[in-house]
Amino acid sequence: MLRRCNPHRRPAVSDLRIAIIGFGKIARDQHAPAIASNPAFQLVALVAPHGATDVGVPVFADHREMLENIELDAVAICTPPDIRYGIARDCLERGVHVLLEKPPCASLGEIADLAELSRRTERSLFTTWHAQFNDAVMEAARLIAREGLGSMRIAWLEDVEKWHPGQQWIWEPGGFGVFDAGINALSIATAICPARLLVRRAVFTMHRAGQQPTAVTLGMTASGVDGPIEAMLDWRHKGEEQWTIDIRTGAGTRLRLSDGGATLRIDDLPAVRHGRGEYPAIYERFAALARDRESLVDSEPLRLVADACLLARRDSI
Amino acid sequence: MLRRCNPHRRPAVSDLRIAIIGFGKIARDQHAPAIASNPAFQLVALVAPHGATDVGVPVFADHREMLENIELDAVAICTPPDIRYGIARDCLERGVHVLLEKPPCASLGEIADLAELSRRTERSLFTTWHAQFNDAVMEAARLIAREGLGSMRIAWLEDVEKWHPGQQWIWEPGGFGVFDAGINALSIATAICPARLLVRRAVFTMHRAGQQPTAVTLGMTASGVDGPIEAMLDWRHKGEEQWTIDIRTGAGTRLRLSDGGATLRIDDLPAVRHGRGEYPAIYERFAALARDRESLVDSEPLRLVADACLLARRDSI
Repeated sequence: MLRRCNPHRRPAVSDLRIAIIGFGKIARDQHAPAIASNPAFQLVALVAPHGATDVGVPVFADHREMLENIELDAVAICTPPDIRYGIARDCLERGVHVLLEKPPCASLGEIADLAELSRRTERSLFTTWHAQFNDAVMEAARLIAREGLGSMRIAWLEDVEKWHPGQQWIWEPGGFGVFDAGINALSIATAICPARLLVRRAVFTMHRAGQQPTAVTLGMTASGVDGPIEAMLDWRHKGEEQWTIDIRTGAGTRLRLSDGGATLRIDDLPAVRHGRGEYPAIYERFAALARDRESLVDSEPLRLVADACLLARRDSI
Repeated sequence: MLRRCNPHRRPAVSDLRIAIIGFGKIARDQHAPAIASNPAFQLVALVAPHGATDVGVPVFADHREMLENIELDAVAICTPPDIRYGIARDCLERGVHVLLEKPPCASLGEIADLAELSRRTERSLFTTWHAQFNDAVMEAARLIAREGLGSMRIAWLEDVEKWHPGQQWIWEPGGFGVFDAGINALSIATAICPARLLVRRAVFTMHRAGQQPTAVTLGMTASGVDGPIEAMLDWRHKGEEQWTIDIRTGAGTRLRLSDGGATLRIDDLPAVRHGRGEYPAIYERFAALARDRESLVDSEPLRLVADACLLARRDSI
């Protein structure tokens, strides 16, 4: 539900006038409600090239047209990744804070360039990785920071036909293939591992008609971690999806993050289940970043994918 | 020719005792003579798993054995790229300055990790890209810094059978394929372009039996550059190699870097031809870095290759 004008809400000078650029499923299901429920933000416009009805705010077909016609403090960019860079540049150059859905850009160069531009324009750039914003993930990170990491095993198994029915772009160059889902797991891994994850071995099972892998196995290492760090990402899985990370800390504690990072069990006992939710936590952080004109730029999950692409053995099926 | 002891040379407290780790063609042809001709360095050991005769300094089969037996200030690591990271870690942790042949590591994560370690150990890390150390390249960079970049066209064409006869590792995962040569061109491009190069389009022609491209075309952009930035890397070329970069500055001046960066022509007239040579310039810089305990870490050429791998369309031949 989108908020246009709430007579019961006290107007505050701290209000951030925000627009959502790209109004697909993730924007409607997650960004709009999180903005509506956070008093720091006021949704003032949308950019939706194919239109959007009944949203209670002006809708533009193009972000440039919007930037010329609406006073804005911030934008959330939820378009496909390959066009985010150009839009984000235009927004930062107009003095607007920028939040990027994951993956923030199509390449590492684009992220580095935007980070530099955000410093020059003194505006906030926030590369969100939603899976990192689960309370369960943050609790796991705290525990691992105390006890060290012993080993980690990622299993990210789902049916591509269920989650991307009939979509061709995922197999195209820049489409990420199974990394489109698996990068969520890698974003958790980079957030909870105390040292930088290094790819040692990458095997891609290529989709028969495409340019992208439908399954990936990664062998990784990290300084100070003695046990194996492995990831299995597979889109050929049938039945219920499995989004699980099994961890052993340096002290031997067993952690299991499941439900994509929403649930944490410690030594087989329930520890954290759900919480504020990923997107409310993301918008709390964005409000704080914009207030302080600080940026949070994290390219590590995409760096891991790029390193895997550099080192991969590609097998056809 | 390697120097063991030169009675005419005045010993200096500033002497850097250096070892070469990995004693293949590039080490023998370039590193050893450049070290011998630079009074700041004294070669004290080699690591050569397959042995090396008549070099006048102790030869070790393993770098760890050397580190335990020889007093050292610096090393030059010239092994194949996939094992450089572990060796460099060991050396930095022993308080030894590290120079890395190109490409510095097998992945971006490894470079970032070493950069962090060099800060922690307060030792110099120097990721060399030899083509950047041509006087002609530095002169081109100065001119472009003044006049801006208008367009750039890279043609890096050579016969793989001539330069890598019978070598299989170049086609293996992590073997880089035609990027093994082409990354020299990209290292010049990143050095002379005033803004970050972004990959927009990458087409890889895959080697029929391998995991790596035998030819690559890249379409790139950079902030502030209006004309095309293109690269053609091709290992299927027969006859004389062509290692050329044609540039038009923002003011319309035409530059041509040829001979892999050794020669510069400006508006069709000879401007710079050869100079000190790449490796003498590299060791001058290394001496200065080690003296000041500063690092020079440049991962941009490898970042470009990684971004190309992320975005590539792979065609079979």
